[in-house]
Amino acid sequence: MKVQVLQENLQRGLAIVGRAVATRATIPIISNVLLQTEDGKLRLAATDLDISIVAWVGAKVDEPGATTVPARLISDFVANLPAATVSLEAPASGRQLRIECARNDSTINAMDPADFPRVPEIRDGVAVRFDPKALRRAIERVEFAAATDDSRPVLTGVHMKSDGPRLTLAAADGFRLAVADIQLEESPPEAIEVIVPARALRELSRLIGDSTLPVEMRINPQRSQVLFEWDDVQMVSQLIQGTFPNYNQLIPAQFNTRVIVDVDEFKREARIAAIFARDGSGIIRLIMTPGEGGMPGQLSISARADEVGGNEGKLDAVVEGDASKIAFNSRYLQDVLNAMGSGRVALEMTSPSAQGVFRPVDENGTPEPGYVHVVMPMFVQW
Amino acid sequence: MKVQVLQENLQRGLAIVGRAVATRATIPIISNVLLQTEDGKLRLAATDLDISIVAWVGAKVDEPGATTVPARLISDFVANLPAATVSLEAPASGRQLRIECARNDSTINAMDPADFPRVPEIRDGVAVRFDPKALRRAIERVEFAAATDDSRPVLTGVHMKSDGPRLTLAAADGFRLAVADIQLEESPPEAIEVIVPARALRELSRLIGDSTLPVEMRINPQRSQVLFEWDDVQMVSQLIQGTFPNYNQLIPAQFNTRVIVDVDEFKREARIAAIFARDGSGIIRLIMTPGEGGMPGQLSISARADEVGGNEGKLDAVVEGDASKIAFNSRYLQDVLNAMGSGRVALEMTSPSAQGVFRPVDENGTPEPGYVHVVMPMFVQW
Repeated sequence: MKVQVLQENLQRGLAIVGRAVATRATIPIISNVLLQTEDGKLRLAATDLDISIVAWVGAKVDEPGATTVPARLISDFVANLPAATVSLEAPASGRQLRIECARNDSTINAMDPADFPRVPEIRDGVAVRFDPKALRRAIERVEFAAATDDSRPVLTGVHMKSDGPRLTLAAADGFRLAVADIQLEESPPEAIEVIVPARALRELSRLIGDSTLPVEMRINPQRSQVLFEWDDVQMVSQLIQGTFPNYNQLIPAQFNTRVIVDVDEFKREARIAAIFARDGSGIIRLIMTPGEGGMPGQLSISARADEVGGNEGKLDAVVEGDASKIAFNSRYLQDVLNAMGSGRVALEMTSPSAQGVFRPVDENGTPEPGYVHVVMPMFVQW
Repeated sequence: MKVQVLQENLQRGLAIVGRAVATRATIPIISNVLLQTEDGKLRLAATDLDISIVAWVGAKVDEPGATTVPARLISDFVANLPAATVSLEAPASGRQLRIECARNDSTINAMDPADFPRVPEIRDGVAVRFDPKALRRAIERVEFAAATDDSRPVLTGVHMKSDGPRLTLAAADGFRLAVADIQLEESPPEAIEVIVPARALRELSRLIGDSTLPVEMRINPQRSQVLFEWDDVQMVSQLIQGTFPNYNQLIPAQFNTRVIVDVDEFKREARIAAIFARDGSGIIRLIMTPGEGGMPGQLSISARADEVGGNEGKLDAVVEGDASKIAFNSRYLQDVLNAMGSGRVALEMTSPSAQGVFRPVDENGTPEPGYVHVVMPMFVQW
C-alpha cells in the first residue's frame, strides 16, 4: 500500500473511526484501525465487534493495499503532525507502516490486515432517511433513559418503531421511560421495529454533530444489524434481539394535578436540591399548590439530609387540579429536565405513589407533541 | 450572626478560600469554611493546616458573629443560587446556618466556630512587593520542577533568595533544576532566604490569575510562615525548614555544543516523540548536527519502542560547536519546553553524559536573562 493524504483529513477520519475502537480489547487486533485503499480513497475501519465505523478519506493512491496498526498510537501521532501531506507506505509482505510528513519519518509496527474482523456490509433491507438534526434531538431525548446494567438486555437498547411516516424512539430502565417521535419525509416501504443499542445511538449522535447531510438507516433482511450512513461515514451496529416491553400502558391517559413551570428555573432548583439530596437517599420532594384569589400557583422543590441540612425552593407555577406532592430520585429529575431544553415543562400526576409524566409545553401550556418522559416516584414519609 | 451579601461576591469568596480546604480531612472541621463578621465585612477562612486562605466579602452586617459549615456543600449551594442578595443567619447558641436567597430557604448544619483552627496572622517581619504578572510567570517557570515525593522535604519547596533588588526562585527534584529571577522595584529591607511549599505557590499563582493588583509577601520574624496578600485575599503558608542544595554549581559555565530552535516546533516534535517514548522507557534522543556549506544546522528528535515503532523528526537549527547527542526523559523535556513560552530556545551541553541547559533566547540567540533550566540526561545505548 502506498497513499498520500492530507494530515487534517486523516486526523478527522481517525477521530471518527476511533469512537468504535475497543478500550479494553480481548483480542489485540480490535485495538487497531484498518487502513485500506478502495476506489482511489483511503478506507479507515475500526470495530469493537458490537459497533463498527468506516470512514473514507480522499487520497492519492500510488499502490493499492491494506495494513492495520494500533488506533490510539496512529491517532495521537497524526494529530500532532503539521498540516501537510502525509505519505503512508506498507509493503505487502512486511509488518510495518511507514509514515512520512514534512520532516517526520516514522515506522509503526503493523499486524496482518487479513486478521482484522470483517465489517458487515448491509446492501439490502428496509431503509429510512433522516434529517440529521431531528434524529440527533430524538436520540438525545431518550438514550440516557436506557438501562446501563445487562440484567435485561432489551432495556440497554432504544426501541425504534414506525407507524406510517412517524418513527418512535423509546428507552426505559424500569424506573423511567422516555419516548420521542421523529416525523419522516415519507413512510418506510415496510414497517420497522428494532432495538438498537443505546451506546450505538449515543456514538451516532456525537458523530453526526452539526452535520446537515441526511442520515440513511438501513436494516438488514435478517433484522440482526443496522447501518447508519452519511457523508463519507458508515456505522454498523448489532441489533438487540428480544421483545421490548409494551410501554404505552405506562403513560397515564389522565391526571389529577398538572403543574407548569419554567424549565430553567426548575433545573436550577433541582440542582440546588440535589446538593442536599446527595447526602440523603437522593430524594427530591415536590409540592404543588394551586393558585388562589388571583395569586399564582406554586411548586416547592425540597431536599434534606439530617446530617447536613436541607433546602426548600419555591417557583411560581400554573397548577391545574388538586394540590398534591410527589418525590423523585435526584438524578432522574435532573436528567428529564435537561432533556427538555428550555422553555416550559408540564408535570402531570395522579397520586404521590403513581408515575409522574413530564412534557415540554408552549406558552399556553399546550404540550409539544413528540416527547413524553415518565418517571416512577420514590416512596417517602411526608 | 446575621449578614447580607451579594450572591456573586459570596460565590467568588468561597471559590477563593475553597482552594485551601483539605480534600481528605483527618479532622472533620478542616473540611469546613469559617464565616465571621469583621469590620462590616464577611470574613471567609479555610485551612488544611499547611495553607490557610482568608477572603473578605463586602456585606451588610446586621448582627456580628461567626459559624462554620462544610465548605463543599455551601460552595456548591451558593454557586447555584440566583444572582440576588443572600441572607445568612446563625444564632449564637445554635448549630445551624440559615441561608435565604430569592425564594430559597435553606439550613446547613454548623459546627462550633471556636473549634476552627486559628489562621496565623503575620503583622511584623520583612516584606516584599511584587508585580503580580512577574510573580506568576516566575512561579509557573519553576514550581513544576519541585519534587512530588517527600523523601527530601526541602525539594518539595521553592527556594526564594534575595540579592539586592533581585529575588531568585529555584526548584529541583534531583533530575532537573529550574531557576527564575524577579526584579523587584526596590531591595527588601533585609536579605530574604526561605523555602516555600511548591503547592502554596501553585495555588497562589492560580488565585492571582489576571489580577493587576500588587502582591505583598511578608515573612514572620521566626521565619516559619509566609503571608501573601493582595486585594481582599490573604494566603498564609508554613515555610519548609532545612538547607536548600547549593544549585549554582549545577549550572555549567561553558558548553561544547549549543543548538537554537523554534520553541513551538521543538514542542511539537517532543510531543510526537513522547507518543512512542511512552511505550519505551520515556527516552527521547536528540542529535545536533552543525550546518555545512551554507546549509542550516539540524536537530533530530527521535524515540522508539521495539513493540510499537518509532519516529524521527528534524528541525532546522543554529548549531554552534561540535556535533553531539543527548537523551532526555520525555516528560522532563516537554515540561521545560512548555515553560519556555514561545519564541526560540537554546540547549547547551558539554557531553551526552552531562546535564543539558535550556534558556529562552531572542532572535539573535542572546539568552533572555532571568530563566535557566537544567535537565540531567538519560544514559542510553547510541
